[in-house]
Amino acid sequence: MKLEHIGIAVASLGVSDELFARLLGKPSYKKESVEREGVVTSFYQTGDSKIELLEASNEDSPISKFISKKGEGIHHLAFGVDNILDEIDRLKTEGFEFISEEPKEGADNKLVAFLHPKCTNGVLVELCQEKP
Amino acid sequence: MKLEHIGIAVASLGVSDELFARLLGKPSYKKESVEREGVVTSFYQTGDSKIELLEASNEDSPISKFISKKGEGIHHLAFGVDNILDEIDRLKTEGFEFISEEPKEGADNKLVAFLHPKCTNGVLVELCQEKP
Repeated sequence: MKLEHIGIAVASLGVSDELFARLLGKPSYKKESVEREGVVTSFYQTGDSKIELLEASNEDSPISKFISKKGEGIHHLAFGVDNILDEIDRLKTEGFEFISEEPKEGADNKLVAFLHPKCTNGVLVELCQEKP
Repeated sequence: MKLEHIGIAVASLGVSDELFARLLGKPSYKKESVEREGVVTSFYQTGDSKIELLEASNEDSPISKFISKKGEGIHHLAFGVDNILDEIDRLKTEGFEFISEEPKEGADNKLVAFLHPKCTNGVLVELCQEKP
Protein backbone atom coordinates (compact mmCIF):
# COMPACT_ATOMS: atom_id res chain seq x y z
CA MET A 1 0.00 0.00 0.00
CA LYS A 2 1.07 3.54 -0.73
CA LEU A 3 0.90 6.31 1.85
CA GLU A 4 -1.64 8.79 0.48
CA HIS A 5 -1.73 11.38 3.26
CA ILE A 6 -1.15 12.15 6.93
CA GLY A 7 -4.01 13.80 8.81
CA ILE A 8 -3.03 16.33 11.49
CA ALA A 9 -5.59 17.68 13.98
CA VAL A 10 -5.27 21.44 14.52
CA ALA A 11 -7.17 23.85 16.74
CA SER A 12 -7.07 26.72 14.25
CA LEU A 13 -6.60 26.31 10.52
CA GLY A 14 -5.73 30.00 10.29
CA VAL A 15 -2.80 29.62 12.68
CA SER A 16 -1.68 26.22 11.42
CA ASP A 17 -1.90 27.03 7.72
CA GLU A 18 0.51 29.87 8.33
CA LEU A 19 2.76 27.54 10.38
CA PHE A 20 2.83 24.67 7.86
CA ALA A 21 3.43 27.02 4.94
CA ARG A 22 6.55 28.30 6.75
CA LEU A 23 7.61 24.76 7.73
CA LEU A 24 7.17 23.21 4.29
CA GLY A 25 8.23 26.30 2.35
CA LYS A 26 5.02 26.38 0.29
CA PRO A 27 1.35 27.23 0.79
CA SER A 28 -1.65 24.92 1.08
CA TYR A 29 -2.89 24.03 -2.41
CA LYS A 30 -6.51 23.27 -1.47
CA LYS A 31 -9.04 23.84 1.30
CA GLU A 32 -12.20 21.77 1.58
CA SER A 33 -15.04 21.55 4.06
CA VAL A 34 -16.53 18.08 4.74
CA GLU A 35 -19.70 18.94 6.64
CA ARG A 36 -20.78 15.33 7.19
CA GLU A 37 -17.53 14.72 9.09
CA GLY A 38 -17.52 18.09 10.86
CA VAL A 39 -14.13 19.10 9.50
CA VAL A 40 -12.47 21.76 7.39
CA THR A 41 -9.32 20.48 5.68
CA SER A 42 -6.25 22.05 4.10
CA PHE A 43 -3.79 20.12 1.89
CA TYR A 44 -0.04 20.31 1.25
CA GLN A 45 1.90 18.19 -1.25
CA THR A 46 4.94 16.48 0.32
CA GLY A 47 6.43 14.30 -2.42
CA ASP A 48 3.86 11.77 -3.65
CA SER A 49 2.03 12.01 -0.31
CA LYS A 50 0.10 14.87 1.25
CA ILE A 51 -0.42 16.50 4.61
CA GLU A 52 -4.07 17.16 5.48
CA LEU A 53 -4.67 19.63 8.29
CA LEU A 54 -8.04 19.03 9.98
CA GLU A 55 -9.95 21.66 11.97
CA ALA A 56 -13.24 20.81 13.67
CA SER A 57 -16.26 22.70 12.34
CA ASN A 58 -18.49 21.75 15.28
CA GLU A 59 -18.20 20.41 18.85
CA ASP A 60 -19.27 16.87 17.91
CA SER A 61 -16.54 16.57 15.30
CA PRO A 62 -14.10 13.66 15.83
CA ILE A 63 -11.38 16.33 15.64
CA SER A 64 -12.89 18.27 18.59
CA LYS A 65 -12.90 15.06 20.62
CA PHE A 66 -9.36 14.14 19.58
CA ILE A 67 -7.94 17.55 20.54
CA SER A 68 -9.83 17.58 23.88
CA LYS A 69 -8.32 14.19 24.71
CA LYS A 70 -4.83 14.31 23.22
CA GLY A 71 -4.15 17.87 22.07
CA GLU A 72 -3.14 18.90 18.57
CA GLY A 73 -1.03 16.45 16.60
CA ILE A 74 -1.04 13.59 14.12
CA HIS A 75 -4.54 12.15 13.82
CA HIS A 76 -4.33 9.42 11.16
CA LEU A 77 -2.34 7.81 8.34
CA ALA A 78 -4.16 7.16 5.07
CA PHE A 79 -3.16 4.51 2.55
CA GLY A 80 -4.40 4.69 -1.02
CA VAL A 81 -5.90 1.52 -2.49
CA ASP A 82 -7.34 0.72 -5.91
CA ASN A 83 -10.42 -1.10 -4.60
CA ILE A 84 -11.44 -0.26 -1.05
CA LEU A 85 -14.01 -3.07 -0.79
CA ASP A 86 -11.42 -5.71 -1.77
CA GLU A 87 -8.94 -4.22 0.69
CA ILE A 88 -11.50 -4.19 3.54
CA ASP A 89 -12.16 -7.87 2.81
CA ARG A 90 -8.45 -8.70 2.74
CA LEU A 91 -7.79 -6.94 6.05
CA LYS A 92 -10.83 -8.50 7.77
CA THR A 93 -9.55 -11.91 6.68
CA GLU A 94 -6.20 -10.92 8.22
CA GLY A 95 -8.00 -10.24 11.51
CA PHE A 96 -8.16 -6.44 11.43
CA GLU A 97 -11.23 -4.59 12.75
CA PHE A 98 -12.83 -1.54 11.16
CA ILE A 99 -14.54 1.36 12.93
CA SER A 100 -17.05 1.16 10.11
CA GLU A 101 -16.81 -1.42 7.33
CA GLU A 102 -18.98 0.68 5.02
CA PRO A 103 -16.84 3.13 3.01
CA LYS A 104 -18.08 6.71 3.22
CA GLU A 105 -17.34 9.91 1.32
CA GLY A 106 -14.34 11.80 2.67
CA ALA A 107 -12.42 14.88 1.56
CA ASP A 108 -10.47 15.09 -1.71
CA ASN A 109 -12.94 13.02 -3.79
CA LYS A 110 -12.24 9.82 -1.82
CA LEU A 111 -14.13 6.87 -0.41
CA VAL A 112 -12.70 6.17 3.04
CA ALA A 113 -12.82 3.54 5.80
CA PHE A 114 -10.98 3.55 9.14
CA LEU A 115 -9.41 0.59 10.94
CA HIS A 116 -9.71 0.45 14.70
CA PRO A 117 -6.47 1.78 16.29
CA LYS A 118 -6.57 -0.94 18.95
CA CYS A 119 -5.61 -3.44 16.22
CA THR A 120 -2.94 -1.25 14.57
CA ASN A 121 -0.47 -0.31 17.34
CA GLY A 122 -2.45 2.75 18.38
CA VAL A 123 -2.29 4.24 14.87
CA LEU A 124 -5.58 5.35 13.32
CA VAL A 125 -5.31 3.96 9.77
CA GLU A 126 -7.56 5.12 6.92
CA LEU A 127 -7.98 3.33 3.62
CA CYS A 128 -8.91 5.61 0.77
CA GLN A 129 -9.88 5.10 -2.84
CA GLU A 130 -10.40 7.73 -5.51
CA LYS A 131 -14.15 7.92 -6.20
CA PRO A 132 -15.12 6.39 -9.55
CA MET B 1 9.85 19.26 1.40
CA LYS B 2 9.17 15.62 0.70
CA LEU B 3 7.89 13.21 3.32
CA GLU B 4 10.69 10.67 3.76
CA HIS B 5 9.24 8.46 6.50
CA ILE B 6 6.85 8.14 9.42
CA GLY B 7 8.27 6.83 12.69
CA ILE B 8 5.97 4.62 14.78
CA ALA B 9 6.85 3.70 18.38
CA VAL B 10 6.16 0.03 19.15
CA ALA B 11 6.56 -2.01 22.32
CA SER B 12 7.66 -5.17 20.52
CA LEU B 13 9.20 -5.24 17.07
CA GLY B 14 8.43 -8.97 16.89
CA VAL B 15 4.70 -8.40 17.36
CA SER B 16 4.50 -5.21 15.29
CA ASP B 17 6.56 -6.46 12.37
CA GLU B 18 4.08 -9.29 12.00
CA LEU B 19 1.18 -6.82 12.28
CA PHE B 20 2.51 -4.30 9.74
CA ALA B 21 3.42 -7.03 7.26
CA ARG B 22 -0.23 -8.16 7.37
CA LEU B 23 -1.52 -4.58 7.20
CA LEU B 24 0.68 -3.46 4.30
CA GLY B 25 0.66 -6.81 2.51
CA LYS B 26 4.47 -7.04 2.41
CA PRO B 27 7.32 -7.68 4.82
CA SER B 28 9.83 -5.25 6.33
CA TYR B 29 12.72 -4.75 3.87
CA LYS B 30 15.37 -3.77 6.44
CA LYS B 31 16.10 -3.89 10.16
CA GLU B 32 18.74 -1.71 11.76
CA SER B 33 19.90 -1.05 15.30
CA VAL B 34 20.95 2.51 16.19
CA GLU B 35 22.67 2.03 19.54
CA ARG B 36 23.45 5.72 20.11
CA GLU B 37 19.69 6.44 19.97
CA GLY B 38 18.66 3.34 21.91
CA VAL B 39 16.41 2.01 19.14
CA VAL B 40 15.98 -0.93 16.82
CA THR B 41 14.21 0.00 13.60
CA SER B 42 12.32 -1.85 10.88
CA PHE B 43 11.42 -0.30 7.51
CA TYR B 44 8.51 -0.71 5.05
CA GLN B 45 8.21 0.99 1.69
CA THR B 46 4.86 2.79 1.22
CA GLY B 47 5.08 4.56 -2.14
CA ASP B 48 8.00 7.00 -2.19
CA SER B 49 7.84 7.26 1.62
CA LYS B 50 8.59 4.66 4.30
CA ILE B 51 7.27 3.50 7.62
CA GLU B 52 9.93 3.08 10.31
CA LEU B 53 8.91 1.01 13.33
CA LEU B 54 10.94 1.94 16.42
CA GLU B 55 11.47 -0.35 19.41
CA ALA B 56 13.46 0.84 22.44
CA SER B 57 16.66 -1.09 23.10
CA ASN B 58 17.10 0.31 26.62
CA GLU B 59 15.06 2.07 29.34
CA ASP B 60 16.57 5.50 28.63
CA SER B 61 15.60 5.36 24.98
CA PRO B 62 13.34 8.22 23.79
CA ILE B 63 11.00 5.46 22.59
CA SER B 64 10.72 3.97 26.12
CA LYS B 65 9.80 7.40 27.45
CA PHE B 66 7.32 8.07 24.62
CA ILE B 67 5.50 4.74 25.14
CA SER B 68 5.40 5.22 28.94
CA LYS B 69 3.79 8.63 28.45
CA LYS B 70 1.56 8.20 25.40
CA GLY B 71 1.43 4.51 24.53
CA GLU B 72 2.33 2.99 21.18
CA GLY B 73 1.64 5.09 18.11
CA ILE B 74 3.02 7.62 15.64
CA HIS B 75 6.22 9.12 17.00
CA HIS B 76 7.50 11.49 14.29
CA LEU B 77 7.29 12.66 10.68
CA ALA B 78 10.54 12.95 8.75
CA PHE B 79 11.08 15.22 5.77
CA GLY B 80 13.97 14.62 3.40
CA VAL B 81 16.10 17.64 2.49
CA ASP B 82 19.15 18.06 0.22
CA ASN B 83 21.17 20.12 2.69
CA ILE B 84 20.18 19.78 6.34
CA LEU B 85 22.37 22.70 7.53
CA ASP B 86 20.74 25.09 5.05
CA GLU B 87 17.28 23.84 6.05
CA ILE B 88 18.02 24.26 9.78
CA ASP B 89 19.11 27.84 9.04
CA ARG B 90 15.99 28.52 6.97
CA LEU B 91 13.67 27.18 9.67
CA LYS B 92 15.44 29.04 12.49
CA THR B 93 15.02 32.25 10.47
CA GLU B 94 11.32 31.34 10.18
CA GLY B 95 11.15 31.16 14.00
CA PHE B 96 11.20 27.37 14.49
CA GLU B 97 13.09 25.80 17.39
CA PHE B 98 15.18 22.64 17.26
CA ILE B 99 15.64 20.06 20.01
CA SER B 100 19.25 19.99 18.88
CA GLU B 101 20.57 22.19 16.07
CA GLU B 102 23.53 19.89 15.49
CA PRO B 103 22.63 17.14 13.00
CA LYS B 104 23.45 13.66 14.27
CA GLU B 105 23.68 10.23 12.68
CA GLY B 106 20.36 8.42 12.51
CA ALA B 107 19.18 5.15 10.98
CA ASP B 108 19.18 4.47 7.24
CA ASN B 109 22.43 6.35 6.45
CA LYS B 110 20.94 9.72 7.38
CA LEU B 111 21.94 12.91 9.18
CA VAL B 112 18.95 13.97 11.28
CA ALA B 113 17.73 16.93 13.36
CA PHE B 114 14.43 17.29 15.25
CA LEU B 115 12.27 20.38 15.59
CA HIS B 116 10.62 21.02 18.93
CA PRO B 117 6.98 19.80 18.78
CA LYS B 118 5.78 22.82 20.74
CA CYS B 119 6.45 24.92 17.62
CA THR B 120 4.93 22.45 15.12
CA ASN B 121 1.37 21.79 16.34
CA GLY B 122 2.41 18.95 18.61
CA VAL B 123 4.02 17.03 15.74
CA LEU B 124 7.60 15.84 16.26
CA VAL B 125 9.24 16.74 12.93
CA GLU B 126 12.58 15.32 11.81
CA LEU B 127 14.69 16.71 9.00
CA CYS B 128 16.89 14.11 7.34
CA GLN B 129 19.57 14.20 4.70
CA GLU B 130 21.33 11.28 3.04
CA LYS B 131 24.88 11.12 4.41
CA PRO B 132 27.51 12.29 1.90
